[in-house]
Amino acid sequence: MKIAYLGPKGSFSHHVVQTAFPKEELQAFANITDVIKAYEQGLVDYSVVPVENSIEGSVRESLDYLFHQARIQAVAEIVQPIHQQLMVVPGHSKIEKIFSHPQALAQGKRFIDAHYPDAKIEVTASTAYAARFISEHPDQPYVAIAPRSSAEEYGLELIAEDIQEMEANFTRFWVLGAEIPKIPLNSQAEKMSLALTLPDNLPGALYKALSTFAWRGIDLTKIESRPLKTALGEYFFIIDIDYSDKELVHFARQELEAIGIQHKILGTYPIFTITDIEKESQ
Amino acid sequence: MKIAYLGPKGSFSHHVVQTAFPKEELQAFANITDVIKAYEQGLVDYSVVPVENSIEGSVRESLDYLFHQARIQAVAEIVQPIHQQLMVVPGHSKIEKIFSHPQALAQGKRFIDAHYPDAKIEVTASTAYAARFISEHPDQPYVAIAPRSSAEEYGLELIAEDIQEMEANFTRFWVLGAEIPKIPLNSQAEKMSLALTLPDNLPGALYKALSTFAWRGIDLTKIESRPLKTALGEYFFIIDIDYSDKELVHFARQELEAIGIQHKILGTYPIFTITDIEKESQ
Repeated sequence: MKIAYLGPKGSFSHHVVQTAFPKEELQAFANITDVIKAYEQGLVDYSVVPVENSIEGSVRESLDYLFHQARIQAVAEIVQPIHQQLMVVPGHSKIEKIFSHPQALAQGKRFIDAHYPDAKIEVTASTAYAARFISEHPDQPYVAIAPRSSAEEYGLELIAEDIQEMEANFTRFWVLGAEIPKIPLNSQAEKMSLALTLPDNLPGALYKALSTFAWRGIDLTKIESRPLKTALGEYFFIIDIDYSDKELVHFARQELEAIGIQHKILGTYPIFTITDIEKESQ
Repeated sequence: MKIAYLGPKGSFSHHVVQTAFPKEELQAFANITDVIKAYEQGLVDYSVVPVENSIEGSVRESLDYLFHQARIQAVAEIVQPIHQQLMVVPGHSKIEKIFSHPQALAQGKRFIDAHYPDAKIEVTASTAYAARFISEHPDQPYVAIAPRSSAEEYGLELIAEDIQEMEANFTRFWVLGAEIPKIPLNSQAEKMSLALTLPDNLPGALYKALSTFAWRGIDLTKIESRPLKTALGEYFFIIDIDYSDKELVHFARQELEAIGIQHKILGTYPIFTITDIEKESQ
């Protein structure tokens, strides 16, 4: 089987697919849209993309493409804890410039200010790019903030571990494909994600849409509005609902249709969580 | 009076403050947090920040800072139509590299593919930076996608106008301060923006929160969830409501309190719209 993910090697996405699909052929793509298109074009069996981070919020490129253009659905969710490491080319001790993604830099700001107040900061497109970049410039006084898997991929040495400020930092990844894959991780309750497009009168329609779930006691674990890209104030809504009672959800969806609220299923998926034990053992 | 805005000169933010505060002293800051802090530190009388674009969605840096840290409120909203122009150092005709912000590049992609399929693309932090950068490298075969005001600011020449694909592209800006400023634009109905933090049980609480507005017939023009930055699945909600019946809103807010839903007022503001007439006449 072939699995598409957001590269380069050593990224959090790479760690997720390595953990979920340890024996399959993994193919890196340069951006999220290309990862999804790889499945649509029949190049891979599954595409894995990040959809939400607990600090940054939704990954707009993933959700917008899935809503507006894709016919593919999520068949599994993988939750990855985010830990950031400070790494150098082995043996380096001179540190003048720190490379990383803006979010990792923000998360490590307190550590950097305390230990490297004079270092220059350079922004990169991803943490894994930062790690690869410093490995390609071994003669420079460079350091990267990146995941542990980046250090392994590019032969770098950790000089400080878990430098992120907030402990509760997780990213949700969706496995997009035709059927639930076999994933060697523990799974929890199933969820369903829907995108609702409401008819003209927004406030009443959203209220009615939520009513169809609320009075049946179906838990919502997320609601998020995204612009429809037509005018200010026109949105679609992404909701995540508990899918443990499939019959109740079935009737709620029928009621949505009956009152004129369109919805698209973005996915129906069990949730797998990567624990720190997997992290340590990789 | 002094007004803080997101620089550099020639940005959409700059055009907004020039139009709304034509006779005041304008001060550019390098990022949104610094713009807001300028007011908090007493350096300026008003701070102007972008809060939402009709295509990209909310400006997370603005809303998160206003919710989590700021005590400042929005006292006016300015809606700016977004038009992108292709510009060069006057007299240039050789075009090998196109500089702009990712959103402007995405919006101009169809035009670029049709007219400059071989040009290299370089991403910049903002459209105005792209314009300033090419003006600083007059000997290079560079072109920038940026607003009209950038061309004026940096002495550049437009070689193609309004190259964005979508016509309905607007950005909302908030004027943060102590009282409603005098703005030489037409104003429409007043709105109020609230940030709601819901008690433990999310689905029921959100439904009840929306009920307090729905049954009173108070229009919601936006609802958006943002992560609380604690764990996946914990959110606060930003809602924009029609503030034309102040008494009804007053009672709705009292009811929110009574059922245990905390809210923070992000702003109460009349809405001013910059039309294309202002754009042409600047």
